[in-house]
Amino acid sequence: MFENTEKTDISKLGEFGLIEHLTKKFDIQHETTTIGLGDDAAAIDCADKTQVVSTDLFIENIHFDIMYSPLMHVGYKCITASISDICAMNAKPAQVLVSIALSSRYTLEAVEELYTGIQTACNNYNIELLGGDTSSSVSGLVISVTAIGYAEKNTLVKRSGAKAGDLVCVSGDLGGAYMGLQLLEREKQVFLDQKDMQPDLEGKDYVVGRQLRPEARVDIVEAFNELKIVPTSLIDVSDGVSSELFHISNQSNVGMKIYEEKLPIDQQTYDTALEFNIPPTTAAMNGGEDYELLFTLPQAHYDKIKNSADISIIGYVTEPHEGIELITKSGNLVPIEAQGWENFKKNED
Amino acid sequence: MFENTEKTDISKLGEFGLIEHLTKKFDIQHETTTIGLGDDAAAIDCADKTQVVSTDLFIENIHFDIMYSPLMHVGYKCITASISDICAMNAKPAQVLVSIALSSRYTLEAVEELYTGIQTACNNYNIELLGGDTSSSVSGLVISVTAIGYAEKNTLVKRSGAKAGDLVCVSGDLGGAYMGLQLLEREKQVFLDQKDMQPDLEGKDYVVGRQLRPEARVDIVEAFNELKIVPTSLIDVSDGVSSELFHISNQSNVGMKIYEEKLPIDQQTYDTALEFNIPPTTAAMNGGEDYELLFTLPQAHYDKIKNSADISIIGYVTEPHEGIELITKSGNLVPIEAQGWENFKKNED
Repeated sequence: MFENTEKTDISKLGEFGLIEHLTKKFDIQHETTTIGLGDDAAAIDCADKTQVVSTDLFIENIHFDIMYSPLMHVGYKCITASISDICAMNAKPAQVLVSIALSSRYTLEAVEELYTGIQTACNNYNIELLGGDTSSSVSGLVISVTAIGYAEKNTLVKRSGAKAGDLVCVSGDLGGAYMGLQLLEREKQVFLDQKDMQPDLEGKDYVVGRQLRPEARVDIVEAFNELKIVPTSLIDVSDGVSSELFHISNQSNVGMKIYEEKLPIDQQTYDTALEFNIPPTTAAMNGGEDYELLFTLPQAHYDKIKNSADISIIGYVTEPHEGIELITKSGNLVPIEAQGWENFKKNED
Repeated sequence: MFENTEKTDISKLGEFGLIEHLTKKFDIQHETTTIGLGDDAAAIDCADKTQVVSTDLFIENIHFDIMYSPLMHVGYKCITASISDICAMNAKPAQVLVSIALSSRYTLEAVEELYTGIQTACNNYNIELLGGDTSSSVSGLVISVTAIGYAEKNTLVKRSGAKAGDLVCVSGDLGGAYMGLQLLEREKQVFLDQKDMQPDLEGKDYVVGRQLRPEARVDIVEAFNELKIVPTSLIDVSDGVSSELFHISNQSNVGMKIYEEKLPIDQQTYDTALEFNIPPTTAAMNGGEDYELLFTLPQAHYDKIKNSADISIIGYVTEPHEGIELITKSGNLVPIEAQGWENFKKNED
């Protein structure tokens, strides 16, 4: 990917040069930002809002694979994933701090590509890069993102407020990022096996895009604000809907019923799942990285969202003793188990 | 170090279990903290202060070596290094977010040891752990710390305010952490060479302690506040005094004269430097990780600090064209060059 142009050894710049080089194109424009890049720390004037802070680590070969993820997309996706946590509090993301550690096989051009993705995301979401740190790494690339956002004092939404009778809703559609990952992993294997085959991603642009360059649902947070909706609980779908339902259920002390037929699944996701012999419902329930918002609402808000093409009502909240269950298309009740993030079992030192 | 007690495979806990397990002992007590651990992000009510945010990455075998750094100390030092950046803005640290990625060779007991160090630091400095993320790593341990602090609106200090005629001051003493590192590296080599020798760290407790468990100078920030001193520029000594002088000089557009004889060097640092054939002045000027505060003050403040045992006046600020120079004990003028962090040159993939 970055083999055919001029290379710059990062050691020529040194740490200070690298940070300055990478961040000089980023503008500071939020009025709450007192000091942005270039000092020991960023300074923020929070005024009368409540601030929300979240931090995430992205590790090469755990969270991303540069064999099929262009670094520009890796940069974009790290920002998406991080600000998605801010959206999951019903807050609007405003600032990020990004630290990277990289091994010597990364050229300056490669790191610039990464930062182009970060900058594109910052521009798209109108957020600022406030600071960060660079260092070397023994192996591969490590990216740490701290995201900061703001909410009006009375509109912050935790995971713990769902009440029996509430509607369970989700934005967008589910399982696409997971099916994109299956496709990219398959094509990587084909490449590694050196079979005389071209990558076969034709007609798969949607699911591949969901995996490589997902978007955070800042627009849904804005819609809540416009519709004067404050969800009773809210979480983003990073580990998979099953896992997120489990978090809300746990922290709100409620049960849930989810209708299989109401799960929003894109046709391409559906077809790709069948191609891989994966039940589409499994992809939708357990596939991670969709970065959609899962939330609960009092039924009184039904009229405000019933015509939204971008919000699906997938079930309802019950008393805790009823557990979390899927009502299948055939009308059976199946307990939902949290799947989610299981990396610890897969990776060896 | 963690070979002789019961081991727990981290996969038994999973990500959610691990974070909960590691953070359950941390208290939330700052009144500005609206939401602490356990949701998508932490929430902070900043009221009328200016908030300062900084983020740092700590990578195994780049920033620390567990062959001679007990994980408890690694945890403590990550907090020290991170909140030192907050002190360097003349702000008081209040909150941290810590993310870790670790390979499967780390047992739960090892990670608990790390978090004991983090917690000890949080208690000592009266700061809260607000959140974080855990994931697996392909190799070794990665720690990301985001530190948050607060300053009164008119007392934030940048690197850019030094004026010709100002005093150049530093807290504590210099070069100790660097000499501690030399000692620990030597003893590691002795161990690896399997020579029949015991580690020889007797009488070296001060310099070894400076390397393994340094402290952040929150007390100096508090002293500034009590003495009604607002430095004209301020930075923490993480990469070495030469490098930090260079930053202040650059960002304030000034020159500096530093007196070699005024550099505060502990006797043990001095003796250890001679033992290693390193000029003590070199250790003091170029050794990093002391986490002392380097700052400039108008001469009018001289009376307030002249009797402080913990602050040394090491020089004065000049016009920019005079450059940064060391006035040696013999009265010669020697240009000071920024050394600092050169890891990119040393490490290979």
